[in-house]
Amino acid sequence: MQAARALTLEDLTSFCVRRGFFFPSGRIYGGLRGFYDYGPLGAELRKEVLDDWWYYFVRRRVDVVGIHGCIITHPKTWEASGHVEAFFDYLVTCTKCGKEYRADHLLEDLGIKVPALSAEAISSAIKEKGVRCPECGGELGEPVPFNLMFSTYVGPKRTKANEAYLRPETAQLIFLNFRDVYYTVGAKLPFGIAQVGTVFRNEISPRGFLFRLREFTQMEIEYFVNPKKLDECPFFDEVAQMKAKILTAEAQEAGSEQHSVLTLQEAWESGLVKTKWHAYWIGESLKWLGRIGINLERVRVREHVKSELAHYAVQTFDIEYYFPFMGWKEIIGISNRGDYDLRRHQEYSGKSMAVEDDGEAVIPHVIEPSFGLERVLLALIVDAYKVVGGRPILSLHPRVAPIKVAVFPIVDKPEFTKKAWSVYVAVKEHFTAIYEEKGTIGRRYYDADEIGVPFAVTVDGRTLEDDTVTVRFRDTKEQIRVPISELIPTLKRLMGREGVDRGSGAGAGI
Amino acid sequence: MQAARALTLEDLTSFCVRRGFFFPSGRIYGGLRGFYDYGPLGAELRKEVLDDWWYYFVRRRVDVVGIHGCIITHPKTWEASGHVEAFFDYLVTCTKCGKEYRADHLLEDLGIKVPALSAEAISSAIKEKGVRCPECGGELGEPVPFNLMFSTYVGPKRTKANEAYLRPETAQLIFLNFRDVYYTVGAKLPFGIAQVGTVFRNEISPRGFLFRLREFTQMEIEYFVNPKKLDECPFFDEVAQMKAKILTAEAQEAGSEQHSVLTLQEAWESGLVKTKWHAYWIGESLKWLGRIGINLERVRVREHVKSELAHYAVQTFDIEYYFPFMGWKEIIGISNRGDYDLRRHQEYSGKSMAVEDDGEAVIPHVIEPSFGLERVLLALIVDAYKVVGGRPILSLHPRVAPIKVAVFPIVDKPEFTKKAWSVYVAVKEHFTAIYEEKGTIGRRYYDADEIGVPFAVTVDGRTLEDDTVTVRFRDTKEQIRVPISELIPTLKRLMGREGVDRGSGAGAGI
Repeated sequence: MQAARALTLEDLTSFCVRRGFFFPSGRIYGGLRGFYDYGPLGAELRKEVLDDWWYYFVRRRVDVVGIHGCIITHPKTWEASGHVEAFFDYLVTCTKCGKEYRADHLLEDLGIKVPALSAEAISSAIKEKGVRCPECGGELGEPVPFNLMFSTYVGPKRTKANEAYLRPETAQLIFLNFRDVYYTVGAKLPFGIAQVGTVFRNEISPRGFLFRLREFTQMEIEYFVNPKKLDECPFFDEVAQMKAKILTAEAQEAGSEQHSVLTLQEAWESGLVKTKWHAYWIGESLKWLGRIGINLERVRVREHVKSELAHYAVQTFDIEYYFPFMGWKEIIGISNRGDYDLRRHQEYSGKSMAVEDDGEAVIPHVIEPSFGLERVLLALIVDAYKVVGGRPILSLHPRVAPIKVAVFPIVDKPEFTKKAWSVYVAVKEHFTAIYEEKGTIGRRYYDADEIGVPFAVTVDGRTLEDDTVTVRFRDTKEQIRVPISELIPTLKRLMGREGVDRGSGAGAGI
Repeated sequence: MQAARALTLEDLTSFCVRRGFFFPSGRIYGGLRGFYDYGPLGAELRKEVLDDWWYYFVRRRVDVVGIHGCIITHPKTWEASGHVEAFFDYLVTCTKCGKEYRADHLLEDLGIKVPALSAEAISSAIKEKGVRCPECGGELGEPVPFNLMFSTYVGPKRTKANEAYLRPETAQLIFLNFRDVYYTVGAKLPFGIAQVGTVFRNEISPRGFLFRLREFTQMEIEYFVNPKKLDECPFFDEVAQMKAKILTAEAQEAGSEQHSVLTLQEAWESGLVKTKWHAYWIGESLKWLGRIGINLERVRVREHVKSELAHYAVQTFDIEYYFPFMGWKEIIGISNRGDYDLRRHQEYSGKSMAVEDDGEAVIPHVIEPSFGLERVLLALIVDAYKVVGGRPILSLHPRVAPIKVAVFPIVDKPEFTKKAWSVYVAVKEHFTAIYEEKGTIGRRYYDADEIGVPFAVTVDGRTLEDDTVTVRFRDTKEQIRVPISELIPTLKRLMGREGVDRGSGAGAGI
């Protein structure tokens, strides 16, 4: 805990680059701000987290189906959603050197609070406090709204009529397809549609490594409920007794940062969380964070205050993680969007968005759990990162560890390497694995610990006599001895995989 | 076979939309040409195919690692790759109505062949054959090259210096990261880097449902080999005796469409496929198509003739599938890119792309198997689509079927539905599954057959007596009786999953 808290953003970034979790995109050309590529370990970590999310929130559930929508989207979508009009930040430009700043970040960094983010409020704050360009000391121009959507032209003509947007959220693709999905799967309310995918926001000042990227990944569910049944949640018992640290809007508006500890039952009954379905999805989201190994002690739930509520939101709770280098930050947002989106699309398309429920045509209300994948990964890595005896260990849960097994010959001699390689090839059929024969065995264990490999298998002298190997546990350094013939089932059992799987249906190796 | 051959593109499209495999993107706003969203079945089919590809080509292998790169990419990338200069089609515009055509498609549709795609050749073909606008009969303008890359602006300024491209292929992200990956994983040649992801091409005339999209998914491997060792492939035995139908460039240049049937050993030894590694990757690609259930009888390998070779390619073979409604079409391309890309990036970045092998600094050569996901899916669906007794059945391999299990009560009465629901919930922990209680059991079987569900589980009268259910097989209609306590292991065995998995490490349900 102590070591993790001392972690800086620079340490973390350099660790992630050095071990191949992430690389600045286009690094050989000087990089592109706000863009990171996933390296080999990052790509596997990403896949494990996405797959587990898809299993937990889609495949396992009886009331959620998935879609996969396009990135370049019909421009009407974003007029209807309100993004063309309302999805912007304020930009201020230095009149002397031309450098551009996101106004709220600039003021925030200087410790200046503005009551609401309007051009007037920003402008007067800049004037009153005498804010000048941090780079050159020049005078700052007037704040102008800058829309965060990336746009491009579809087809050969570069005209306004051919302009389309790269989606800034996956949510709208779900709303667009809502009726088609509803009818093709024969759904009944309540039900959810999930989607995972890349989104784009042309941030004025990307920052915080993976925290504020221009290209990132969302995992979203839009959960559709009959507006008369927002408090009829058959699964509520599964989360009702979970305790959460909740920082209310009321507390924040009174100037406090003090959270309350409440069960979700209490949070709903007290009226703090306005609907039972909303409280349920807060609970499920927390449960999943726990499932992938994040320490829920470092997690809180914060209600949005009125001035920060998005234009579509009735009520929003963020799930925040405590980052040692930047404090509490949102990693998941859970909004009650009401019927805003479906109504707007109905209005803009002229097509009914109502479906039948209990013999009535209703436009459902929507609860939206929205996960930022890279933010979850950032929390996951920070949470797992420990320094033990001066060496970093990444204590990732076996469920999400990018590499599950390391296979080593005790020394680099042919009788050991040949055997170890054959064990490695067999393990590879079932688990992501690495093999290394160079260096001392201690050094190789540390290298594997550092990238979060939960189990290390070693071929040693005894292996050549009785065909057993050692299995070493990353976190405890304990070792057990296992016959090679039992190695795969043993590893499956250690990972909790015996007889269970992620609900995908196909088999390998046949 | 007969029925599948009669399938039209319109039948297929309407089937896929009706059952929720794909929806035209932005359909409620009239759609956006060249863009399709995946519906619930499509999203699961997509995931199954991607996951199996990742397992087969990355996780299972000892010589390939994955990355996941950005879509918006540093603009220098595409100068170095040659895309800024050479990635274009010719556009002709009607001088009267303004309609735009992709010149080669326009001529192809009229049965006019041009020897090479140059502005001059197209222009003279149009003049000689008196080609006019198919829409209005107006005169066509001169052909102009049109770059197929979508572009956007990064940051607030809309200037040339801030223009960046949406990647038109995933390959370049691999080349950009080549050295970082090589060193962070401690790789040795030969080795491969794989990537799956969305790419964008601003096609002038998207067509053929999923065949020519503006936004689609690639699954690519760049396989790096010491140029002195292009014929040293330790895995070649695994594919050497595979037979393939190969249509050579020589045959095509002699005006023939007649393929030869050769083993890959013969194809390499005869010098037809220039390097052993290239022949190996053709074999592996074919094996994977077979593995996901595509009938290899409907697949051929076609060598590119000189005039169609891409600017980077030494030699290219396409794997083509025979579509009843459009003939032989490429679904996979396997290129020998030589050292073109790494050399260009070395030149443009000023950073060495050499790595050490056998004590020498070498710039590796690259063999690139490149899969178009949506084209593979189109082939998969066409291949699986059969009409039996007047009803469509989708005979998808259980490995990729989007829904593995359907659970039905024999009739819609509480004693059956309650039991069937509990079976469904238990099955859902392990497999994608659907539940339906309305309609005759025959109707429900047909509905499940139509979307390719390989196994249907029915709760009937006997279930209430002895806790057994029937398992019905989609393709044979056979049924077996299984105790509920044995249902999950039985389904796993039927899917070939007993004791095997896809090599992802985490378990569900723990």
